[in-house]
Amino acid sequence: MNISEEHRKAGKGMPDLSGLITKEEVFEKLFAAWSFKPQIEETAVADALGRTLADDLFAKYDQPVVRASRMDGIAVKSAAFAGGMPDTSLWKPNVDYIRADTGDDFDDAFDAVIQIENVTILENGGVTLAEGTTVEKGSNVSPAGSNIRKGTQVGRAGKVISPLDMAAFVLGGYGTVKVYKKPVIAFIPTGSELVPAGSILERGQNFDSNSIMVNAMLERMGAEVLLYPIIKDDREQIEKALKEMISKADVVILNAGTSKGGEDFCVQYLREHGNMLFHGVKAVPGRPMSITIIDEKPVINMSGPAVGAYYGCLWLMTKVIDHMLAHTEPVYIPTAEATLTEKYGAPPFLSALSSFELSRAEDGTLLATPIPGRGPGSRGMSAGLMADAHYYNQLGEASHEAGDKIKVILAK
Amino acid sequence: MNISEEHRKAGKGMPDLSGLITKEEVFEKLFAAWSFKPQIEETAVADALGRTLADDLFAKYDQPVVRASRMDGIAVKSAAFAGGMPDTSLWKPNVDYIRADTGDDFDDAFDAVIQIENVTILENGGVTLAEGTTVEKGSNVSPAGSNIRKGTQVGRAGKVISPLDMAAFVLGGYGTVKVYKKPVIAFIPTGSELVPAGSILERGQNFDSNSIMVNAMLERMGAEVLLYPIIKDDREQIEKALKEMISKADVVILNAGTSKGGEDFCVQYLREHGNMLFHGVKAVPGRPMSITIIDEKPVINMSGPAVGAYYGCLWLMTKVIDHMLAHTEPVYIPTAEATLTEKYGAPPFLSALSSFELSRAEDGTLLATPIPGRGPGSRGMSAGLMADAHYYNQLGEASHEAGDKIKVILAK
Repeated sequence: MNISEEHRKAGKGMPDLSGLITKEEVFEKLFAAWSFKPQIEETAVADALGRTLADDLFAKYDQPVVRASRMDGIAVKSAAFAGGMPDTSLWKPNVDYIRADTGDDFDDAFDAVIQIENVTILENGGVTLAEGTTVEKGSNVSPAGSNIRKGTQVGRAGKVISPLDMAAFVLGGYGTVKVYKKPVIAFIPTGSELVPAGSILERGQNFDSNSIMVNAMLERMGAEVLLYPIIKDDREQIEKALKEMISKADVVILNAGTSKGGEDFCVQYLREHGNMLFHGVKAVPGRPMSITIIDEKPVINMSGPAVGAYYGCLWLMTKVIDHMLAHTEPVYIPTAEATLTEKYGAPPFLSALSSFELSRAEDGTLLATPIPGRGPGSRGMSAGLMADAHYYNQLGEASHEAGDKIKVILAK
Repeated sequence: MNISEEHRKAGKGMPDLSGLITKEEVFEKLFAAWSFKPQIEETAVADALGRTLADDLFAKYDQPVVRASRMDGIAVKSAAFAGGMPDTSLWKPNVDYIRADTGDDFDDAFDAVIQIENVTILENGGVTLAEGTTVEKGSNVSPAGSNIRKGTQVGRAGKVISPLDMAAFVLGGYGTVKVYKKPVIAFIPTGSELVPAGSILERGQNFDSNSIMVNAMLERMGAEVLLYPIIKDDREQIEKALKEMISKADVVILNAGTSKGGEDFCVQYLREHGNMLFHGVKAVPGRPMSITIIDEKPVINMSGPAVGAYYGCLWLMTKVIDHMLAHTEPVYIPTAEATLTEKYGAPPFLSALSSFELSRAEDGTLLATPIPGRGPGSRGMSAGLMADAHYYNQLGEASHEAGDKIKVILAK
């Protein structure tokens, strides 16, 4: 690939696209060259939030197991009411009737419940019932299985487990469930200029914000992250880190060094040591991304600048993790429909991440105002990190007018 | 309050609403009787995901601090190009030019960058530049602050911290940030019939699914949860648990025993020991809820059945936690706009949680099909736990026709 030569020929206006593949082609190449079968492990339901269920689950019990009172009251024998209202004033507790509150089971001798508000319990243990009280077999009684029936599906394999799912599993009779083991993703931040969060910043230095951000994003998606310390643009350090992480992780993200800089040993090393599936994708920021298969594992060389790494996690890593966890529904990314306050433009030949400020119209409509990436009104290259929301166009989709509705990704 | 008498008079059709207050009135009463000021603590940015930021944060440094090359290339002195293209064949490295890759700062002697693809470095150290190469002071150089300007706001107090926020804080120069301490919410599951998750279920028993579900929901909202073990419907046990939890937590949820059963000591105890703000709310399931202030802390007596507890967390606990964490934006609850496939009805005098199955139309539209709560097609009282989505009507809002769009709460 020779981006530069083409670029020069094409002049400054049109970015060079030769050698770049589409996101769809990235997935085709990646999943043709690599597949991953998640391992299964058992976990307590209480610890299963956000994990991916590996089994279809069905309720083990009818509930109520036998019956339950539908209200607070007394359980009675309906046969006693066959000839109309009986004389209940000499009824004996636990013989002719028994207390039964909402959800209570009671002895099989009784088969109906009278609501407590219609009952006065007398000093001798007998009762008075309110006028008009009627009793039939089964009245105010929930039969077996009326809350949940044995065999009801309470969980689907491939689903990310929510709090409500956890309740369904417990009601299904499960104390533990089988889940997929978290895929292990290593993240190696490279760059001689990088310093860790909270350092005193000197000229020529940049903060490593990607380690913290990517770690949080990947953990939220369901992965376990191995964070490697910052390493310099040094062939030996990169080689050592890559070897170690490829041996320990299922997928490795090598961050920065994606292009042709004098110190970009990463690309060089990857070409020499594995099968580079592609170098360059029609997605900006983060265009010079590559994926190389080394020891049957994908090494993703992801763009260094923060917004590029963010976008790479959004469009690529979500699908990589869906694949690794055999998700039946994709990783959840919060979105909302918003109305553009201004025209928004994107290059139709690239899938470009754009940034928006959100606000509310008087009638509550969500409004999205584009934040210019460059030129007048631009807020610096990191403006994307401070944005309320993002949007990326599909290839061929160029612009939207003020008043158009777009589905933005909620960033914050 | 005498629900039963009214109910009897009103007949079976119309549920009794006397003594019930609206959700809005619940918040008015609660926040008039109780207020909470969150404590502040410091945490590493790396550990701040999902926490609530307590300070406005502004970037500490211009970035780049001085300058950065905008591309891989060589840094040169623009003055050398004042009279047109100079003879560069005898240029000396580190004197007339210096390597500068994307993001690199370089010595103040240089002030412009030439893209590496337009440069051939000769064996003697001199260079050849591509035809047409032009150089001006500052070309291909990002000036100080062009990535992020000192003083740019990188965080807002009251915001729940996202991965992107974490990147913004790091770029702002922060290694640690001030966050609100997690409010401590105790959850006490009561019920002689309750057994823990995974037990062998016998007749008369129910699984305690609320502890696990409510714990997960509240933790996701940003609280720390103290889970009390299951206790019996026993006045002494309830009293002991309440005393202990009121002393340790900021808010106590006493689960079940909300109504008038013979064993519902909870309501009795609360009335006797604190200021019960209300008992009964126009929200179903979970109508018999009460809140009592004891030792200046709210004790929320929440409905026992699982769907009632879920709904109580959704409408009440989200706002309680927003209040306790001084949120400037509410706890995030995933929602989506869906088109009804059938008429959906709700009682206009109660805010009722309804359950839906979701599917996709051929054109991708999200479709919501109501799951009947009772009667034909009903799937048992726990169907709400297995639903894909929920919706609750506002008071006065009764029904929607097939084809109407509603904003459903994504349950799973």
